Amino acid sequence: MQALVYKGEGQLALEDHPVPQLQEPTDAIVKVVYTTICGTDLHIMHGDVPTVTPGRILGHEGVGIVQEPGAAVSRFKKGDHVLINCITSCATCEYCRRGMYSHCTQGGWILGNTLDGTQAEYVRIPQADSSLHHVPQGVDEKALVMFSDIFPTGLECGVLNSKVQPGSSVAIVGAGPVGLAALMTSKLYSPSTIIVIDRDPKRLEIAKKLGANHIINSGETSAEEAVMKLTNKVGCDAVIEAVGVAATLEMAQDLVAPGGTIANVGVHGTSCTLKIEKLWDRNMSLTTRLVDTVTTPMLLKLFAAGGIEPGKLITHELPFKEMEKAYSTFKAAAEHEALKMLITI
Amino acid sequence: MQALVYKGEGQLALEDHPVPQLQEPTDAIVKVVYTTICGTDLHIMHGDVPTVTPGRILGHEGVGIVQEPGAAVSRFKKGDHVLINCITSCATCEYCRRGMYSHCTQGGWILGNTLDGTQAEYVRIPQADSSLHHVPQGVDEKALVMFSDIFPTGLECGVLNSKVQPGSSVAIVGAGPVGLAALMTSKLYSPSTIIVIDRDPKRLEIAKKLGANHIINSGETSAEEAVMKLTNKVGCDAVIEAVGVAATLEMAQDLVAPGGTIANVGVHGTSCTLKIEKLWDRNMSLTTRLVDTVTTPMLLKLFAAGGIEPGKLITHELPFKEMEKAYSTFKAAAEHEALKMLITI
Repeated sequence: MQALVYKGEGQLALEDHPVPQLQEPTDAIVKVVYTTICGTDLHIMHGDVPTVTPGRILGHEGVGIVQEPGAAVSRFKKGDHVLINCITSCATCEYCRRGMYSHCTQGGWILGNTLDGTQAEYVRIPQADSSLHHVPQGVDEKALVMFSDIFPTGLECGVLNSKVQPGSSVAIVGAGPVGLAALMTSKLYSPSTIIVIDRDPKRLEIAKKLGANHIINSGETSAEEAVMKLTNKVGCDAVIEAVGVAATLEMAQDLVAPGGTIANVGVHGTSCTLKIEKLWDRNMSLTTRLVDTVTTPMLLKLFAAGGIEPGKLITHELPFKEMEKAYSTFKAAAEHEALKMLITI
Repeated sequence: MQALVYKGEGQLALEDHPVPQLQEPTDAIVKVVYTTICGTDLHIMHGDVPTVTPGRILGHEGVGIVQEPGAAVSRFKKGDHVLINCITSCATCEYCRRGMYSHCTQGGWILGNTLDGTQAEYVRIPQADSSLHHVPQGVDEKALVMFSDIFPTGLECGVLNSKVQPGSSVAIVGAGPVGLAALMTSKLYSPSTIIVIDRDPKRLEIAKKLGANHIINSGETSAEEAVMKLTNKVGCDAVIEAVGVAATLEMAQDLVAPGGTIANVGVHGTSCTLKIEKLWDRNMSLTTRLVDTVTTPMLLKLFAAGGIEPGKLITHELPFKEMEKAYSTFKAAAEHEALKMLITI
């Protein structure tokens, strides 16, 4: 089969690879139909993720068809259309029993990391019963790929962790795919205002179209001054950091209201400054989370009912044979006005 | 009357001062019977708190007797014995209505800060109806002074903010009065283990007597290694930082378990490092809080019922005329094995 393989720092190749086989009775082999590329895949490509070794097939997002369920798989049969979770969970370990699937002792984020992933014609999914979802009847399976990772991430790590609720003022730092997914899912909780901050005017325009009440170009103006002006000098109840660099997480600390919450969504490679001399009496929280995908069943119901439009984040569609071009387009996202790349295998 | 006055950086003096008068109908003049000294008063003495200007009477803790209630005070009459809250609250502003009395737009921490405080024979208490508490019958009024600040601080900023619950593993960094109040109040929630970390062997011994399951001298051993050894390499569900320097808040980040919470209680004057590269996927929270004193009514009931012994933190008793000696003893706390100084006025 063809697969997109990490070949070492800066190098990827679409190459021939053996089709994966069942290893455990709880596995399923899934024929991948649609996949996409995550910002994390770019980090891997740059050699920033030490757990990923050369030879690894990348990808932790996808929609496909069950090709061969293992003998212990009870919820899925051959031919079932499935959404692949970016998080693999056994459903039985101590963390899984607390709903913290991200820290599953037999899973977590392993696809395209320590196990071969979804940017291939076939993928082996361990713990299939608790790591796949049935595709609801009649939904757009291309758009559904957005539910493997970015929508539950924006919702759980951003919206739920920052405690967005009716009437909240919300600031989202970063209008990339995950920031926009946080924007779309924060609207489910009826905040009073959503302010989106980015340096890319085109992404800010998209945020506006997707329902941001205010947009701030932090390349042109002070985000702190602009947010304080919009919030009667109080700051925002919920601040969602969806970039993953020190500067934006430090900026988030300047935007939070007394009693508010900063939810870090970004993947960080370096430390940053905690302005505790300013925050110690602010009655605030700063939260982190690797997505647990506990909201995926809810998102699937909502999508089937027409309550959310994840496909709006797909800007490019390419066939799998153009996977290397897809990576280069996604890497130069601003130039190509790219959000999510939909890859048909 | 006699009052302890801040005279500028490094200088305090017990001196004559006019007795305060009612200024608003919601004020009450309280004759102070017992007061104490807070770590924050030492910060003020060192010139670290810019809101406190020379000439200010210090102190935000005390128990006294209502001398003169203002015309609009309905809950207290002359002669009532009262506990003075360190936090003044109007009970009606937007923050107060959310229970965030610490951020009251007409109050917050103002006593001994922007208004004259309790280290005096008399004090003017604004918003008396919502800033004083009746002393429950029969309780030890000396011990009660511990409820003006350190017990609600340890409980709210430490125990509640770090979400201590039955079965939790708890680490408390700092065995000073507030850390020990956090220890005593965390036991109300039946954690499975409490680990107290400090550099002072005598304070650690007191922590042990007050119910710590384990003590770690971080001057002699790595707190992280010791906590990991005690928690099966997982870390603690609740980590309470009760010192207020960068090093201890950075240490706290090394002690928290996946899914856990770091509660900052300390007052910080400088930034610290946030190890976000290690914490981003830890599903953790870091919280801050200025005490709201929302738990004070509960603590009063508990004390009246014999369920908590705040007096255990009083190590020294002095008359008011020896206030300067009380400060010097408290400042050299380790040398004098001092926790809280009880001052009788």
